[in-house]
Amino acid sequence: MSVTSETGPRRSIWRATHERVVSIIDQTALPHRSSTLWLASLRDVESAIGDMRVRGAPLIGVTAAYGIAIALDAAREPSLTVAREAKMRLDATRPTAVNLRWATSRMCAKLADVAPRDLIERAFAEADAIAEEDVAASRAIGEHGARALEMLWRSKGADRPLEILTHCNAGYLATVSWGTALAPIYVLQERGIPIHVWVDETRPRNQGYLTAWELSEASIPNTVIVDNAGGHYLQRGRVDAVIVGSDRTTRNGDVCNKIGTLLKALAAKAYGVPFYVALPSSTLDFSLARGADIEIEERAPEEVHTFPWATAKNPAFDVTEAHLVTALITERGVFAADEASLREAFPDLARQAQKSE
Amino acid sequence: MSVTSETGPRRSIWRATHERVVSIIDQTALPHRSSTLWLASLRDVESAIGDMRVRGAPLIGVTAAYGIAIALDAAREPSLTVAREAKMRLDATRPTAVNLRWATSRMCAKLADVAPRDLIERAFAEADAIAEEDVAASRAIGEHGARALEMLWRSKGADRPLEILTHCNAGYLATVSWGTALAPIYVLQERGIPIHVWVDETRPRNQGYLTAWELSEASIPNTVIVDNAGGHYLQRGRVDAVIVGSDRTTRNGDVCNKIGTLLKALAAKAYGVPFYVALPSSTLDFSLARGADIEIEERAPEEVHTFPWATAKNPAFDVTEAHLVTALITERGVFAADEASLREAFPDLARQAQKSE
Repeated sequence: MSVTSETGPRRSIWRATHERVVSIIDQTALPHRSSTLWLASLRDVESAIGDMRVRGAPLIGVTAAYGIAIALDAAREPSLTVAREAKMRLDATRPTAVNLRWATSRMCAKLADVAPRDLIERAFAEADAIAEEDVAASRAIGEHGARALEMLWRSKGADRPLEILTHCNAGYLATVSWGTALAPIYVLQERGIPIHVWVDETRPRNQGYLTAWELSEASIPNTVIVDNAGGHYLQRGRVDAVIVGSDRTTRNGDVCNKIGTLLKALAAKAYGVPFYVALPSSTLDFSLARGADIEIEERAPEEVHTFPWATAKNPAFDVTEAHLVTALITERGVFAADEASLREAFPDLARQAQKSE
Repeated sequence: MSVTSETGPRRSIWRATHERVVSIIDQTALPHRSSTLWLASLRDVESAIGDMRVRGAPLIGVTAAYGIAIALDAAREPSLTVAREAKMRLDATRPTAVNLRWATSRMCAKLADVAPRDLIERAFAEADAIAEEDVAASRAIGEHGARALEMLWRSKGADRPLEILTHCNAGYLATVSWGTALAPIYVLQERGIPIHVWVDETRPRNQGYLTAWELSEASIPNTVIVDNAGGHYLQRGRVDAVIVGSDRTTRNGDVCNKIGTLLKALAAKAYGVPFYVALPSSTLDFSLARGADIEIEERAPEEVHTFPWATAKNPAFDVTEAHLVTALITERGVFAADEASLREAFPDLARQAQKSE
């Protein structure tokens, strides 16, 4: 089944109406091979998450939510206990994924007072709701971002494709649909605005090929470059805007994202090119004052190389300081990367963070 | 034979006294395997250069010079005609290598008036001279650079290893010995100053592993990182100085070097870390006013990836603007990267360029 089939255009996970299985794109096979998997049992869902066949925080959460519905469907006697046992097994698949526990908790809370005979249907409905909320947030990011980029394109004369540089994969493969950094690009395409995307390879894990693959499937012109090349193209006026996602954004607007993001932000600043960060508000962290407070995850050196005589360090993320960020594109609009703007746009999240302190 | 053997410590090419063969490190086997090759015939030399078993402009020139001596030695009747025919075959092995033609021309010019019976000996002597001049230039770069870096180390308290970041391979493997960017590091080691080198992987061809290999062989602590990681380490104060080589430096001090150099220079500038460029004066180009005038070589996309559905661009070099360069380290000393300083330090080269215009 192709990802451009009726059931799942530009979606990383989908469910046919009335069916009690979900389909996913197997991301471990990408970009070598595009294949779809059916998740029809709790074990299927556990291994899909654990083996990273689905990746990206929002997508992991949605997949786990469906896992609870699927576990209830398979049980001889569906019950809240079945749901809670499924939650425990699912939560263990990726111990550090915050969205995973958030989604399974929400499922169990919603099912707490449901009559046993309605449990399965309500579980699938709630998982669908979580998925659709994610789609809506991504779509809104796409709309807000596209507005900013369309203005930029018009300001440059609107007579050639808008040239965008991106890093890592913040496309629909990392969410349910649309993505974050790529959402505005898909919306621009809908509106018939010509685009070309420079795709950073993104060593050491090469997520750039996921980006190139999903853009190519969507017929959006794109060119893969090594991570080293972006400075050259920014310097020579070949990039109109940089747009990336974010794993965590602190309340002052500092952006933690895939290693290498910072180098592109510095180059964009040096050559006067706007640098946008697209993010769902779920990744805003009001509890942290600044990015320098974030401890950067160190991953296995084997991701970098496998020479027995060599030593490697492999930091997974870096922090782009707020002053390098032109604007944050969120589902609520486009905001300056500073504390005042973020508090004004997200008073609810700011309050929540204060309460839990 | 190991490169740390008596005959060739920290040398990429060497000749045992009175022998009429030369030994090289086979760089196509590195860093997987360290092996030495004997070049005993013109055909050996042609294929060593053509197959990139030797690389780096100075090393290619020296190897070709020995090629002419070896061709004379193999001839039934050594003559200038034999030397000139060898030159033509050698010049064809790497059509764009300027040093190659420079070295073979110098050999033929020096042999023009030599009696046939002395040709072989004089040819080997001249090739030795070319090699030793290169060693002397590299060693001088090392001395001048080490002085600057030692001052830096003392200014930081001299109580921990000096942290240096480098990009690509500008070590002894790219020259005859010492290298350019790595020469000051080898001199610092001689002086007992503790050093640690962050080695950029240097996609797409991964020359960082050549650097890691030669530093490791010399027992200099080093750590390979992906090209994306340098910004993070510069930002967090983990790098005291960046030092790179140069393929071409224009008269205003703009530096053309391996793709990705520019991103590190921008990050070094942003975080107040000195950015040094080490170069032999043979790579100074007084005929060009500025780096923007350099057309950047575009290499095969297959160096980046091999997915049939993807498109790639693969620029091999980028230009680091002079204002990002703290200083140029040359065999004549350390100079500011601007036209006045370069004209003053290299009046001979400046005049030569003017004459040939």
